[in-house]
Order: sequence, then structure tokens, then C-alpha cells
Amino acid sequence: MSDFHTLSTEELHEYRFRLQEQYNRFRSQKLKLDMSRGKPSPEQLDLANEMLGLIRSGDDFLAKNGVDTRNYGGLEGIPEAKELFAPMLEVHPEEIIIGGNSSLNMMHDTIARAMLHGVCDSEIPWAKLPVVKFLAPAPGYDRHFAICELFGIEMITIDMLPDGPDMDTVERLVSEDEAIKGIWCVPRYSNPEGITYSDEVVDRLASMKTKAGDFRIFWDDAYAVHHLTDRPASLKNILTACKEAGNPNRVFLFGSTSKISFSGSGVAMMASSQGNLDWTRKLLSAETIGPDKINQLRHVRFFKSLDGIMEHMARHAAILRPKFERVLEILDSELGGKSIASWSRPQGGYFISLNTLDGCAKAVVEMAAGAGVVLTKAGATYPYGIDPRDRNIRLAPSYPSMEELTTAIQVLCLCVQLVSINKLLKDGSK
Amino acid sequence: MSDFHTLSTEELHEYRFRLQEQYNRFRSQKLKLDMSRGKPSPEQLDLANEMLGLIRSGDDFLAKNGVDTRNYGGLEGIPEAKELFAPMLEVHPEEIIIGGNSSLNMMHDTIARAMLHGVCDSEIPWAKLPVVKFLAPAPGYDRHFAICELFGIEMITIDMLPDGPDMDTVERLVSEDEAIKGIWCVPRYSNPEGITYSDEVVDRLASMKTKAGDFRIFWDDAYAVHHLTDRPASLKNILTACKEAGNPNRVFLFGSTSKISFSGSGVAMMASSQGNLDWTRKLLSAETIGPDKINQLRHVRFFKSLDGIMEHMARHAAILRPKFERVLEILDSELGGKSIASWSRPQGGYFISLNTLDGCAKAVVEMAAGAGVVLTKAGATYPYGIDPRDRNIRLAPSYPSMEELTTAIQVLCLCVQLVSINKLLKDGSK
Repeated sequence: MSDFHTLSTEELHEYRFRLQEQYNRFRSQKLKLDMSRGKPSPEQLDLANEMLGLIRSGDDFLAKNGVDTRNYGGLEGIPEAKELFAPMLEVHPEEIIIGGNSSLNMMHDTIARAMLHGVCDSEIPWAKLPVVKFLAPAPGYDRHFAICELFGIEMITIDMLPDGPDMDTVERLVSEDEAIKGIWCVPRYSNPEGITYSDEVVDRLASMKTKAGDFRIFWDDAYAVHHLTDRPASLKNILTACKEAGNPNRVFLFGSTSKISFSGSGVAMMASSQGNLDWTRKLLSAETIGPDKINQLRHVRFFKSLDGIMEHMARHAAILRPKFERVLEILDSELGGKSIASWSRPQGGYFISLNTLDGCAKAVVEMAAGAGVVLTKAGATYPYGIDPRDRNIRLAPSYPSMEELTTAIQVLCLCVQLVSINKLLKDGSK
Repeated sequence: MSDFHTLSTEELHEYRFRLQEQYNRFRSQKLKLDMSRGKPSPEQLDLANEMLGLIRSGDDFLAKNGVDTRNYGGLEGIPEAKELFAPMLEVHPEEIIIGGNSSLNMMHDTIARAMLHGVCDSEIPWAKLPVVKFLAPAPGYDRHFAICELFGIEMITIDMLPDGPDMDTVERLVSEDEAIKGIWCVPRYSNPEGITYSDEVVDRLASMKTKAGDFRIFWDDAYAVHHLTDRPASLKNILTACKEAGNPNRVFLFGSTSKISFSGSGVAMMASSQGNLDWTRKLLSAETIGPDKINQLRHVRFFKSLDGIMEHMARHAAILRPKFERVLEILDSELGGKSIASWSRPQGGYFISLNTLDGCAKAVVEMAAGAGVVLTKAGATYPYGIDPRDRNIRLAPSYPSMEELTTAIQVLCLCVQLVSINKLLKDGSK
């Protein structure tokens, strides 16, 4: 099939008729397929099941510093968990705090602290300012944006380029506007496009002049070890870059094992400068008595080392890679050469980002839902849920089985084509 | 030995000399005893060790609603955990949210939400008000007070009477001052005095007129099932009382298994009206993807029912009761009849509250530390760490072994007597 833009109105009508027939056949199957969220499949979760029985009655429950992991205390996590996870985020063990089960919650709490108390070099808590703004590279992660909405933080959308956020715009905005206090980054295998920031982008983020003295980068390294190929993307160390640029407190790093061990029962972590960590510890000590240390010990005894984590992630990749390949195969064969959509070919992470023709994403997601295929809500990858070009759709291939995935993407491709033809016909008739 | 107040200066001097000799002997032993915090002993923690191996590879990990506990989701906890713990707080399963490992963290977060967003019937977030005040019945729990200090919430100390806070004062203050937004309560086996609120106090709290339309009771039922005798204290249901009084949203209840299963790896919970829970859920959905559901399932499979919890708590009591009895025996024999101290005889909970003569608590704690016995910091049981009469010392008998506990309390009794004699001699010489 050739470029849709070169087809005559008649050809488009005819082709639409055939596509609609196929769509109707799927619809009559009353499918119930959900590829809306980046959830690991049961098969992936099974990979870590052995961890659950690892600590049991008769074992010793002591951390290497002598702390009984079953009891209170240990605000920042047990030492061996710091040693295990620090190299995953490429920081030193004294630069990391190991928390509960949710890195999103650590990000939320970090911003909540900034709102109520400021960060370590704030003159005033952010909530006391007339307006607080964040830069939101988009397409991006909807739950980051939801935290900003929760706190009434105004988001400014920044275009994503192939090597990271549009730094010319970022640099200009942060140098001009004191109200801009932060930027969201998923620097490795970004959600949803799978982009890894270039060294230049990292350096520019670390060294740029910001009008706000307490500007912070929220560096969500969610996919630090989530490679799909044998050639892991390399990401320049931002904590080091910030130190070298004379902005040691500029960045908070976050990570978790939610997509390594268990999504609901993993271990979350944050890393930063001593200035930021001292500030965090001080506030944290009033917030909680400490994280679940037994679960941390479980992770340490199961993974043992970063090598252990990497071996485990290779097993995840072996399950995930064929799913990504299948999605790409179908997109290539069904949508390739038609000039109605483009899509990412990620080397890691959890998503494939699909761009339709402008103004088609919502209609595609709606039409897919009509055939029982739930996709991530159109617009979700943009601040306030509004995609200005209404074209981005986030595909999450991990959870469905191969068979379900195949069907879901076939339905998706039909919908993209149908909606595109409708648009072309409408545009042509104008 | 008779009432110290009836002894002559000479007799006091002579007695002090003998006490000082005994104190010096303890000091030369270079003791290292810590009875500062209400931590369960390793022997108590062992009671739940079987729970840890209960969920392991090969098991099914599904909650009864079909949710895979290993994966994301389930913001308010799994249904069977709600069913297990609702009766512990005497609420309905739909009135409870099951969270992470820390009820203190749930309390902190509830107040942080009120500061940033208000509660469901606030006109304005509390942090936007010029001043926010809480009533702090004291002696009370230092970590409650620390949360208020963290947020700059002004605390007003309320005297504790034998059946709960001094309600005449509470009612007067809340009816007059709109800035008073809350009150801290540990209503059952209170920390540190072991007081259980009377029905009348519960009713007055539920029905009193408050000038603030969004006043909240923070009801920390930390010792809901932590009985030391066969005659459990009965506590009137505050959620029902608030509903009946026409103030359904007035109370947030909190509880946890920190002193039931594992202090660092238990399950925390909060209960409230639908209005409060809907508000909480809405905000919570931006804060986290959900709690550790595997750990909730572990607790459900181990305890099975409230009866299971009660049987387990009887095993805790069998370990704790002799420790409390030992402390009381020594206090009775060493300090009884001397009119220099009084102490509580709790029927549950984790603490014994000791009151010295006015102005002696700090000196006693300091002198005990000099002999290697660490007690809870004097003043810790009062807002801002300041005990206006400098007399309250919180004793935490749970963690030390019986032998350590015996020595620690002997040292304590020597210190109370020495400091009291010093005070009497000084007062007499004036």
C-alpha cells in the first residue's frame, strides 16, 4: 500500500470500506485487551518469586550494621541495600536513601517538602510563592504531570528532541523566569519515546544558569537497567556533572525495582548531594520511623550485586524484546510507507511512542476502545492531558500476552488507518 | 524507709551517702542499657517469623478480587486486608484504607495534605492561614508533637486527667479559637500513661462545638489490641459517636501492626468517614501507585481473623506482662511510701509513666545516663520537649531483657532518690 496522501478520494473510500469490515470483525469478537499501562506481565513477575521465600523463620534478620531489620529504625535504609543500589544509579552509597515501595511517592514527597519547607537553598517554601512553574518535556510521564497538578504547579511544555528536551528553550526559560523551580526528566529510555539524553543535554542541564537559586532537576531514572538490547544506552552521570558545574544541589535522582522485582513490592530510592540528603533526612525523620527493611534485605539477598541485577534484567529483556518486536513488525507492515504515522524504536524502557497525523490520536484511542482495546488515554503524555497536536499515543507492550498484543496492535493499526482516511477525506473536501 | 519529707537533714545526708555508693557501684559496671523507645523485643518479633515464609514461589499471589498483589495498583489495599483490620479499629471495611508500613507516616501525610490542600470541608488549605494550632494532651507521644513542629503548627498543652484530656479546657478552647484545627489523641492505653478515654470523653470530643468548621481529631489507636491483662479496656467507638453527633468528618483513626507483627515491616491503616476517605483517595492517587500488597497478603494469611490477632497479642502479653510487673515491683519497693514519685499501672500499651518531684526529671535522666542507662529524654512527652513541671519520665520496658530491665530500673530508682534528696536539701536550706 502506498502513501495515503497520494491516493485518490475514490481509492481512499474503497480502502476505508475494507478496513471498516476488518474492524467490525474484531468488534464482533468482544475483545477485552488492555495495553494502557506499563505493567510487567505475570511471567516477568515470576522471575523474582524466589525472593519471597528467601527470608523466613530461622534466618537471621540482621543487617550488616547489626540492626534487626524487623524492628523500628534505619531511616535511610540498610547499608547493604545502599551498596547494592548505588551503582545502579551510578552514585556512592552515601549519596543514596533507600525508601519504601514507590519512587513516585518519593518524588511526590520531595516536591511536597519543597512546597511546605523549601529545598535546602530556598529562601522561602515554594507554596508561599505566588506561582511555581515546572518545565515538562513532552511527551512525558502522566504521573509526573499529575503531581504538578496536585500542587497547582504550572507546567510549561518543552518539546522533546531526539537527544532530550529542547535545551535552547529550556536554557532561555530558566534564565528568565524565577518562578521556574524544576524540570521533569526521564533521561534514559524516556517514557514514552525511549530517548536517552545525550552527554551535551546532561551537561547543559547541569551547567545552565537558572534565575531561581533553588531550581531542581527531577531525574527519574526509572529505566536505568531496563535495556532491550545488548548495547545498553549510556547516560552521562548528572550528579557528577552538577558537582563539576558548581551546582551540586541541582539534581534529585530517583529509581526503583518496581520493574525489576515486583511493581507493588519493590524498593524505591533517591540519590543526591549531601546538602539535599541532609535536608531530606531532617524532614524525613519527622515523617516516618523508617522503611520496610526486611523487604530491602530480601532484595539484597536475592540480587546480591549489580551483576545479579543485570542478569535478572536480561531475563526480563528476553520476555519483553519479542513483544516490542512484534509491535514494531505489525506497525511496519500495516502502517509503513503510508505517511500517516511514525513510531519510536526503543532500545529499552517500557513504551513505544506512536504519532498519528495531527488531530487523530483521540479518535484512534476512542475507536480502539470501541473494539475492546484499551490504550493509554490520548493526551496523557502531555501536561494537563492536552496534546496540542492530538497525535501522540503511548503503547505499552509489556503486560498482554503475545497473542493479545498481536490482536491489540492489529486493531490499533486499523483504527489509525481509518481515522487517517477520515481526516484526509475531510481535509480534501474542504 | 519512710516519707523523705519527714526525714531530718542529717538523715537525708546519711541516706544519700549510701545511695551514692550504690550508684557508683553501678557506674563502675559500665552498663549500656537502653530503655528509651517503645520497641518490641527480638523475642516478641520472633512470634511472627512464620509470616515471612508464608508467601513464596509456587503460591498464588492473587487477592480475592483477582488482583495480582505483585503488580501495580490497589491504592487502598487489598479487600481481605480491609476485612481483617476493620474490626480491629471497630469500623466497616469500606471505612478503612490499608497503607504501607508506618501509621506515623499516614498521620504525617494526612496533616501534610491538610496543610497543602485542606481537608474535605476546609475553605482554605491550612498552610495558607496565618496560624494553625493543635491541642496536645500531655504527657503524650513525642512523634505526634514532632509532626506539628515540622509544619509550624502551634501546640497548646492540655492536661491529661485519669479518663482522658481535660475536656473542660478542650471544649472552651475549640469553641473560642478558629485557628485550632486538631487534637492528638492516643485514646487507648495512652502513651505514656496507659490511660483509656472514658465514654464521656469520647462523646464530648465527638459532639463539642468547634469554631473551626474543619476541625479534626487525630485518633491514634496504636494500642487497640495491646492488652496486658485479661480485662481489655473498652473504648467507645468515636467514628460512630461523631456520626451520631452530626460531625461525621471530625475524626481520622489510625492503627498499625507495628507492635503486632513487625515494627518496620507491618501494615498501617487509617479509617474515617466516606467524606474524608474520598478526599484522601483523590489526593493519594497522585501521591503513589499503591502500597505493598504482598505484605498485606502475608498478614492476612498469617493472622486470618481478628481472633487470630487476639491470640497473637496474648503471646505478646505473656512476654510483656512480666516485664511491666518487674518494673512496678522495683518501683514499689524502692520508691513506695517515700512521697518522691508516682507512677502509672497500665493495663495495656507500651509504657509506664513516672512522675518525680517537680524539677527533678531532667536531672534523673541525666544521672541515669551517667551510669549507662538511657531513658527517654526528659520533656519528650510534652510539646516542644518542655515539661513545664520537669517531672515526667517515660519508661519503656519492652525491649531490654528481664535482667537488663531489672538493673536499669534499679539504677533509675537510685537516681530518683538521689535527685529528690538533693532537691529536698536544697529547698530546706533556703
